[in-house]
Amino acid sequence: MATDPLSRTFAALADPTRRAILARLVAGECSVTKLAEPFDMSLPAVSKHLRVLERAGLIARGREAQWRPCRLEAGPLKQVADFVERYRHIWEARLDRLDSYLQELKKKEKTHGRKHRGK
Amino acid sequence: MATDPLSRTFAALADPTRRAILARLVAGECSVTKLAEPFDMSLPAVSKHLRVLERAGLIARGREAQWRPCRLEAGPLKQVADFVERYRHIWEARLDRLDSYLQELKKKEKTHGRKHRGK
Repeated sequence: MATDPLSRTFAALADPTRRAILARLVAGECSVTKLAEPFDMSLPAVSKHLRVLERAGLIARGREAQWRPCRLEAGPLKQVADFVERYRHIWEARLDRLDSYLQELKKKEKTHGRKHRGK
Repeated sequence: MATDPLSRTFAALADPTRRAILARLVAGECSVTKLAEPFDMSLPAVSKHLRVLERAGLIARGREAQWRPCRLEAGPLKQVADFVERYRHIWEARLDRLDSYLQELKKKEKTHGRKHRGK
């Protein structure tokens, strides 16, 4: 379905198991059997997830016939960071507005409190 | 399929048309008809994409019955930025290694060039 690289990356990331696999690989390369351990999942099911990650370029597999360790490839994640960076000013502006609103509320509360004590 | 919010966000972003719609909404809220203009697509097809974006919380629709403008909601994009941030050190380390390698190559080339001129 997804043919462009960024869509392939997003589709691969749209699954909690695949994101957990990537998180595990931050610590270093790992065999499929070891990767499968924390999941209540058959090896073929895990292998299927690995194929999706591999097709998206998020992991690479070693060449050793018996032990084909997986390792993280962070290139596509950098593309995601670059994509999302273009929207940062929008959520930061929203947080700024929220912050000003809270400051305003605090100021009003103080004035209100002072008035009450003045009575 | 995707039930957790982050998976829903990633699935919604895994389509170039939906990403183009979000990019358009950076400029401000917009009607569905206007949003559909640049795409060679029927209004129902665009509406389907909008529903996916809305379910992921990436856009919100106005309440006006006739003109229900779409606006960008950047909250889920911040979640994506937070997710990808955890991997930044990996691609930055790779870029650093590449940089050291290139510096090394340049140094070698200089030494090599000097030797050649010395002959």
